[in-house]
Amino acid sequence: MDVYEKSLELHAQWNGKLETRSKCRVQSAQDLALTYTPGVAEPCRVIANNEEAVYQYTSKANTIAVVTDGSAVLGLGNIGAKAALPVMEGKAVLFKEFGNVNAVPICLDTQDTEEIIRTVIHLAPAFGGINLEDISAPRCFEIETRLKEALDIPVFHDDQHGTAIVVLAGIINSLKITGKQTETCRIVINGAGSAGIAIAKLLLRYGFRHIMLCDKTGIINTDTETLNWAQKEMCKVTNLENRKGTLADALKGADIFIGVSAPNLVTPEMVASMHSDSILFAMANPSPEIMPDTAKAAGARIVGTGRSDFPNQVNNVVAFPGIFKGALEGRAAQITEEMKLAAAHAIADLVAPEELKEDHILPMAFDPRIADVVAEAVKSHIPR
Amino acid sequence: MDVYEKSLELHAQWNGKLETRSKCRVQSAQDLALTYTPGVAEPCRVIANNEEAVYQYTSKANTIAVVTDGSAVLGLGNIGAKAALPVMEGKAVLFKEFGNVNAVPICLDTQDTEEIIRTVIHLAPAFGGINLEDISAPRCFEIETRLKEALDIPVFHDDQHGTAIVVLAGIINSLKITGKQTETCRIVINGAGSAGIAIAKLLLRYGFRHIMLCDKTGIINTDTETLNWAQKEMCKVTNLENRKGTLADALKGADIFIGVSAPNLVTPEMVASMHSDSILFAMANPSPEIMPDTAKAAGARIVGTGRSDFPNQVNNVVAFPGIFKGALEGRAAQITEEMKLAAAHAIADLVAPEELKEDHILPMAFDPRIADVVAEAVKSHIPR
Repeated sequence: MDVYEKSLELHAQWNGKLETRSKCRVQSAQDLALTYTPGVAEPCRVIANNEEAVYQYTSKANTIAVVTDGSAVLGLGNIGAKAALPVMEGKAVLFKEFGNVNAVPICLDTQDTEEIIRTVIHLAPAFGGINLEDISAPRCFEIETRLKEALDIPVFHDDQHGTAIVVLAGIINSLKITGKQTETCRIVINGAGSAGIAIAKLLLRYGFRHIMLCDKTGIINTDTETLNWAQKEMCKVTNLENRKGTLADALKGADIFIGVSAPNLVTPEMVASMHSDSILFAMANPSPEIMPDTAKAAGARIVGTGRSDFPNQVNNVVAFPGIFKGALEGRAAQITEEMKLAAAHAIADLVAPEELKEDHILPMAFDPRIADVVAEAVKSHIPR
Repeated sequence: MDVYEKSLELHAQWNGKLETRSKCRVQSAQDLALTYTPGVAEPCRVIANNEEAVYQYTSKANTIAVVTDGSAVLGLGNIGAKAALPVMEGKAVLFKEFGNVNAVPICLDTQDTEEIIRTVIHLAPAFGGINLEDISAPRCFEIETRLKEALDIPVFHDDQHGTAIVVLAGIINSLKITGKQTETCRIVINGAGSAGIAIAKLLLRYGFRHIMLCDKTGIINTDTETLNWAQKEMCKVTNLENRKGTLADALKGADIFIGVSAPNLVTPEMVASMHSDSILFAMANPSPEIMPDTAKAAGARIVGTGRSDFPNQVNNVVAFPGIFKGALEGRAAQITEEMKLAAAHAIADLVAPEELKEDHILPMAFDPRIADVVAEAVKSHIPR
């Protein structure tokens, strides 16, 4: 039985991976009077007089919504709200198991940007944060930006920022091994959707200066005709020489390749054309842009993928549970760029100098320290 | 320490009465591959091809949303979304503890009818049912009706129907004791909000013919100027003689008083003016329309209240957990009048003939049989 058949069988057994549970007993009339009426009226009155008290007396303090419109689910594409629910429940399970954050799947039956924004604003009061998930680009950028403006709780699109944070952590450690310098490193990102653009933005923020974004048309430049508004924005801050050409052209002399695209797009020849000590994060699903062995044989020094069966798995689960844990514990109003950079450093630093090597640049997903370490880093960078 | 102080203290300790929990373990890369990526793609694909499969592979089958706009919370009134959250969490706790139904509090930051309807429709895909809670009349009627039309999952406004079902159950058993006949019984309902109107409708459906609704202006009649559209509709089916007068006038010769109004509105003289063997459900919060001892001394035979410290507590908790349990297990598209009547009969029948007496007309809230018995009754009346 393969992983898909086994997963289907287990999902039928579970009949839902998530449940709600009471933290208080209700076994007597007295319990009922304290948890519900008439006693519950008192916390209600206190919150009505002082909104902030909602964090003291309710689950808002430690509960987030995992919101999707089902438009860009895993590698499956636009499969809609109901078909997205197994993924959202899975995400909620990971939030709880890794970060002890309560998470509620919300699958929206609309893919209209304005309706999504309005709906999330309306349902926000009971939640301490909003994790956007699997919403297609470029709509995801506007939805996230507008929600951040409208709400006083953290809004975080994990496909963008979770991925970007873990990639940055991997790069920070790769530079330690290779001795490459941030200022001079040449980076090629293949895939200009939500993850590719977010990675580019965070790497720029970190201090990298030479980034090219590629898509199916090759190097994105100011003459590329198929760009959406978000990609056009990126032309102003990446590929400043406005180079044109194919992915193969882009990779000549590059130091780092970051793939969030499709399997098998990178050839051994392309890797051989890169700068020495090249670093590749080939994260396409279900198969990477180039297999690690092939890349290494062609001269790559460090290779990461999205898969758990190869070394250097780039896995968001080392980021998002701790990030929300820290943001909620610290009552952050937003998750800022500084908090993301702090998370990336914290993740990178979990690999001790003596452990750091080509095949071990990132902590393992089940390292029990991760969520707390990331949470502390995030908390200590909340703006006051 | 009174119940309010104690409840406040406990709410601070709990820091939220509700949590989410994973039903599956995630302790290895293999677990991760089965609960999340890549394995989770398979149930997604199956649901994308067959929407119905969402009930097999996700928590939708056994999870409801408890939705409020905070406009009519307990006896506290319009306290808004955040201040309503302790009540919604309490309700979710009761759904789980009494009916094993997972329930998620959703507190909306809008009180606009159209926005509420649209928001609930948008967030419905992940839920197997919608329990509306503490939404003010007459908006609650339109919201419920429109959502029932728009959605293929049960929508139930507990303040209306839960209360009506338990009151009907109490009346069914009261008639057994007093020998009064449904056709000739004269009923006065004081309070013409969501509960009062829903009680009137369900009693009419059951077969009662003589019902008068009263509000602050007295007996509601076709000349009452302050009626909203829902109350005007009720003029067509209640008070068919179009009587006018005060609550005291209404109660002269009445068999049954049902109060969903305010404390101390019924005097001993009013009770004395009622028909012999009178039945009073004085359910105002926090104090009843008349205290049971006073009513009994004035001639009442059966008195119920909303309070657990008097006999005959009329408590919705004997209804709503079992109703949703049955509706979800039976995959009902709606909760119909027949299902409500069946629930009322099932609740009434839980008091065995040999136990039935003036001070014991309803099952106790903690009777462990209730939810299953109600659920079975509801399931067996789902239209096919």
